[in-house]
Amino acid sequence: MPVSDAAIGVFDSGVGGLTVLRSLRERLPRERFVYLGDTARLPYGTKSPESIRRYSIQAAGILRARGIKCLVVACNTASAVALEALRERFAPLPLLGVLEPGAIAACRATRNGRIAVIATEGTVRGGAYQAAIRRCRPDAQVLARACPLFVALAEEGWTDDGIVEAVAHRYLDGLFHGDQAPDTLVLGCTHFPVFAPVLARLLGPGVTIVDSAGTTAEALAALLAGRGLQAAATATGGFSLLATDGAERFARVGSVFLGRAVAAADVELVDIAPPAA
Amino acid sequence: MPVSDAAIGVFDSGVGGLTVLRSLRERLPRERFVYLGDTARLPYGTKSPESIRRYSIQAAGILRARGIKCLVVACNTASAVALEALRERFAPLPLLGVLEPGAIAACRATRNGRIAVIATEGTVRGGAYQAAIRRCRPDAQVLARACPLFVALAEEGWTDDGIVEAVAHRYLDGLFHGDQAPDTLVLGCTHFPVFAPVLARLLGPGVTIVDSAGTTAEALAALLAGRGLQAAATATGGFSLLATDGAERFARVGSVFLGRAVAAADVELVDIAPPAA
Repeated sequence: MPVSDAAIGVFDSGVGGLTVLRSLRERLPRERFVYLGDTARLPYGTKSPESIRRYSIQAAGILRARGIKCLVVACNTASAVALEALRERFAPLPLLGVLEPGAIAACRATRNGRIAVIATEGTVRGGAYQAAIRRCRPDAQVLARACPLFVALAEEGWTDDGIVEAVAHRYLDGLFHGDQAPDTLVLGCTHFPVFAPVLARLLGPGVTIVDSAGTTAEALAALLAGRGLQAAATATGGFSLLATDGAERFARVGSVFLGRAVAAADVELVDIAPPAA
Repeated sequence: MPVSDAAIGVFDSGVGGLTVLRSLRERLPRERFVYLGDTARLPYGTKSPESIRRYSIQAAGILRARGIKCLVVACNTASAVALEALRERFAPLPLLGVLEPGAIAACRATRNGRIAVIATEGTVRGGAYQAAIRRCRPDAQVLARACPLFVALAEEGWTDDGIVEAVAHRYLDGLFHGDQAPDTLVLGCTHFPVFAPVLARLLGPGVTIVDSAGTTAEALAALLAGRGLQAAATATGGFSLLATDGAERFARVGSVFLGRAVAAADVELVDIAPPAA
């Protein structure tokens, strides 16, 4: 079986994609990962498609220069808006977004064909989740809602308390009521898995919560196997962290998402900004 | 009396500075203003000082190229971190930040010498408000707290409800309790004036709330008069809006802060990002 010792690139607008890195490492413990958070220009969720594409191409270029064997776009907004532009630019590098795996998992999970998606403004407005779900299941009814406050709450580390519950009610009550309520909720932003416990409590056992990180890990495993790009059976794995700004904040907030302590000294700063005009 | 027909530049990381523009226009109705929101790279509050300085210099350069007679840095974070760099770069253009006027107003307002400041992470960590207050009143006790969730709440348009109250309690209860509680609260972020009503209700009449927008307008009036840069007595004033990204969102969210409707067609997009690498 062919193997590749090269690392897998993982790219996000900031720290939220560390929830994806965490799932990838659990599923593929022998692989090495190099993660880049574009913290100098986060968040992508409120930026225009043109800016998101430009930023994504710059960030992916840094990872490609490190000799990666494939690239995971761990940012939902970039997956929604920039995946095709990245494919064109970096072919034949294998590329995987988080959006398509999440959409497929939701279509598998739903019984009544009604799926709710919560995400950033950019992801919801672009309509990419809605389109990906309908490609997989054309008769699906998709309700999408932008939940920008969840991003700020996650970064503040407020993940399960009365404020989170009140915000969740404000965002979700309009989506989940009556006979026609969805039975599936897609967490369409990498920040949102930290709210899975409170959302599960609020929505009850009748609603399946789909976190695209786990399904992306499955898709990546299949991609590596299909192309003969797996790490050797003797490889021990590992990861390195790059950020475009603010190593201290990246480490502090990132620890919440990665589920383990990160020190600022573990984060390598890389510069993708131009010199001052 | 000498006059100048040139416009006054106003620069912010995004839409929050429109609360400052609003105060400036009320105080100086005959002046013309050109406002630039660096929406492509907002928020500044979580970025490193180096990035904030670089972004601020680029944004100010765009305004200077439009022939402004002076520049108001309406962003607290940029005022805290980049004002000196901007002065060096753009001298002899007169420059005014929002931080110093707010600090002076707080020192005038306090009776017990204890002042609370709420701001973004970047402003609080940099310690510039604390230093500016102590320059004005060396014996002042300053308590500063980063309130990043208020930014997201303001941009969501949730400005006075149970969620805002709960978040305000979480942020402020630790600052305002006991005999030694501050009697003055500085709103050290341009987003925060929209919360003045709920904060006033929560803190009661014993606490003076200082909004730096109003004091900055006074400082600007004095600066213009001192340098003979006022608009002619017959001038009718006006303003134009520039943004580096997302005119539609700028208009929608900006309407909350400017206190009047803004249409996307009223917002001119300017490009300060480099071409893709």
